[in-house]
Amino acid sequence: MTLLVTGGRVLRPDLTVERADVRVDDDGRIDAVGALERRETDQTLDASGGIVLPGLVNAHGHAAMTLLRGYADDKPLDAWLQEDVWPIEGVLTPEDVGAGARLAAVEMIRSGTTAFADMYFHVGTVAEAVADAGLRARLGHGVVTVGKDDEAARADFAESLAVAEEYDGAADGRVTTAVMPHAPHTVDTDLLAEFVPKAHEAGVPLHFHFNETAEYVEAIDEEAGVRPGAYADDLGMLADDTWVAHGVHLDDAEIDLLAERDVAVVHCPASNMKLASGMAPVQRLRDAGVTVALGTDGAASNNDLDLFDEARDAAMLGKLAVDDASAVPAEAAVEMATRGGAEALGLPVGRIEAGAPADLAVVDFDAPHLTPEHDPVSHLAYAARGSDVRHTVCDGRVLMRDREVLTLDADAVKREAAERARDAVDRAS
Amino acid sequence: MTLLVTGGRVLRPDLTVERADVRVDDDGRIDAVGALERRETDQTLDASGGIVLPGLVNAHGHAAMTLLRGYADDKPLDAWLQEDVWPIEGVLTPEDVGAGARLAAVEMIRSGTTAFADMYFHVGTVAEAVADAGLRARLGHGVVTVGKDDEAARADFAESLAVAEEYDGAADGRVTTAVMPHAPHTVDTDLLAEFVPKAHEAGVPLHFHFNETAEYVEAIDEEAGVRPGAYADDLGMLADDTWVAHGVHLDDAEIDLLAERDVAVVHCPASNMKLASGMAPVQRLRDAGVTVALGTDGAASNNDLDLFDEARDAAMLGKLAVDDASAVPAEAAVEMATRGGAEALGLPVGRIEAGAPADLAVVDFDAPHLTPEHDPVSHLAYAARGSDVRHTVCDGRVLMRDREVLTLDADAVKREAAERARDAVDRAS
Repeated sequence: MTLLVTGGRVLRPDLTVERADVRVDDDGRIDAVGALERRETDQTLDASGGIVLPGLVNAHGHAAMTLLRGYADDKPLDAWLQEDVWPIEGVLTPEDVGAGARLAAVEMIRSGTTAFADMYFHVGTVAEAVADAGLRARLGHGVVTVGKDDEAARADFAESLAVAEEYDGAADGRVTTAVMPHAPHTVDTDLLAEFVPKAHEAGVPLHFHFNETAEYVEAIDEEAGVRPGAYADDLGMLADDTWVAHGVHLDDAEIDLLAERDVAVVHCPASNMKLASGMAPVQRLRDAGVTVALGTDGAASNNDLDLFDEARDAAMLGKLAVDDASAVPAEAAVEMATRGGAEALGLPVGRIEAGAPADLAVVDFDAPHLTPEHDPVSHLAYAARGSDVRHTVCDGRVLMRDREVLTLDADAVKREAAERARDAVDRAS
Repeated sequence: MTLLVTGGRVLRPDLTVERADVRVDDDGRIDAVGALERRETDQTLDASGGIVLPGLVNAHGHAAMTLLRGYADDKPLDAWLQEDVWPIEGVLTPEDVGAGARLAAVEMIRSGTTAFADMYFHVGTVAEAVADAGLRARLGHGVVTVGKDDEAARADFAESLAVAEEYDGAADGRVTTAVMPHAPHTVDTDLLAEFVPKAHEAGVPLHFHFNETAEYVEAIDEEAGVRPGAYADDLGMLADDTWVAHGVHLDDAEIDLLAERDVAVVHCPASNMKLASGMAPVQRLRDAGVTVALGTDGAASNNDLDLFDEARDAAMLGKLAVDDASAVPAEAAVEMATRGGAEALGLPVGRIEAGAPADLAVVDFDAPHLTPEHDPVSHLAYAARGSDVRHTVCDGRVLMRDREVLTLDADAVKREAAERARDAVDRAS
């Protein structure tokens, strides 16, 4: 059955907004955009008073960390990880991770995100959650080798590659994968040297945390006597299908290197503020030609998965970072939340045009906080939020209609996640 | 008729959350908090699954600037004011300002704000909007004397005092007032010297922009050879009922001076980021004993009036400002959004306890982005947003029930504001 998204306006790839309908073919692809007549075979989705956007792309996160939302705030990164996050994560079962990922899926669907990247463990249950939710995702097993013996470290990295090969193409092709060493300084150099070429041979992209904090940069400098950019490049980690998270503390040479290697950077403004990591040079990255995407990071350092917040935060923090109110304008924020994410993850989405997969979010513009409307792109960046999303569509399938999530039982998902979160805290303490 | 807010939990003045009902007497005051039986005379408001908060206090803004929401973004402060904001403001009629203020009122009611401070002009129509909306507000006429001849400058300041005296006690006492010189550097020293004592004599507090940008500080240094703190203090502007907006660029002596004079500071994190003004020293102000409140500033530099965003932004930016993830914790953000604002504006609200006016917001906690609930205060600061507010009560009157605004016709308000905004842009161009 075809789907006609009717009566609204559409955000076109050039970021203009115009009156148009969108027809989606039964293969899940956009068939036509414009003034379209309803056909008998069309199921309809009412977009009147709204704007149809490409579904947002959350290009860095840890979905199951919804279980830890609000569990431990207001602590420095290291203490937070060691005292709070890792002890809980150590007791999480595959079922716990699946429950956390389903909660994340409900939250993302409700806020117009249709694709996300996820670095975690028990990836199989995350893939199941993606399949059930109807979302699109690029998933990977995060590798940390510090504190592990050689065998365990090697096994961890091998698992990341095996998982990437196993789940690529799952959920009718909506799941793709990556090999995900946590960060250059938390994985042994020898293992990076061994496995990075294997990932390239297997055609699997790499994703890792990069220069998130000043300490991350210092760690590599102490170990290798160079900046993380040169270190990662030397190990072949900066390939054109690599995308990195954070990129807060970058020097000019590293920005140029990322541009030259066509490596995308995922800006996570809320997480960077909440963990006091710093301000990423978003305008400079964009000026250098680097693709910049947006990510929520995990819900424990955000504390939600509403990518509209990230768009607003990115535009605002990007100005503060360079003391220039004209930096990272509204158009840039909207582009990063859509096309930037798609390009970072190597997904053929992020643009509403014929032939593209129909990943869509319909944002209701008939709200007091979106009145008056001098500039709809400004509203998308600064004033709209996830709760304004009326419908969400991924791969041509309606995941949410009139704010009701259709693919998952939201109440059951909330209940299970709440119970499993409580139990995990009990087990860890 | 009495009102019983029933079935929920209550945020107590010590920021603990506990199961309790709230009974409101027919004089609009809280009569009792605890496990209460319904009486025949009680109208009820269902708070089950929710948390009853003190209504949020938006302690600095320009309500009618909703008309300029998204009109001109991503520009430096001076160019933005001179090329965009002031030309439009120059053509606004009293009816325009009233329409903008009513739109702001709808938005604030929908996001749980029950009291606000407003610096603008055509204050009479703002007072009418407050009366109609059922909100509480401290209003004033903003004085700018730069570029005006002596007579016009004096008249402007005289109007601010006259307006403060005229509207104090309007809307059944819910409107109070202040004299509002725009900023130390935008008002003639002679007129400050003349009118500040008059305001004190009349018992009217002062409110002004203070050290918002580095340029504001330099302007006073160039004119008077001192920091704005010493300058304002010398003119008697730092009285214990004064509250100032922004306070971004403060030195240690100024922080101590604000503490000594018991002057409250309204932190406006979104505006400070969007206009690239800087990061206010919120943790240092609080450590010094200064009362810190939160403000949205005008919708043109935000771009909405949801004070939950400010709470989140304040907690996050406050950490970044001092490179310490433990600064400005969740409790501080919630306190600033409630009691801090009440104290700044000298209003007997911001605490749910017997005898206080019943200004309340009921936040629905049964949402995916508020699941699981390890710490409700964390959720209030980091994850809840205006759209989670189910009911809003001010002075014992229900302004919004189940997200329906009862005191204003939200659709008509939106329509009128949109039309007037469009017309104003046409007239100004």
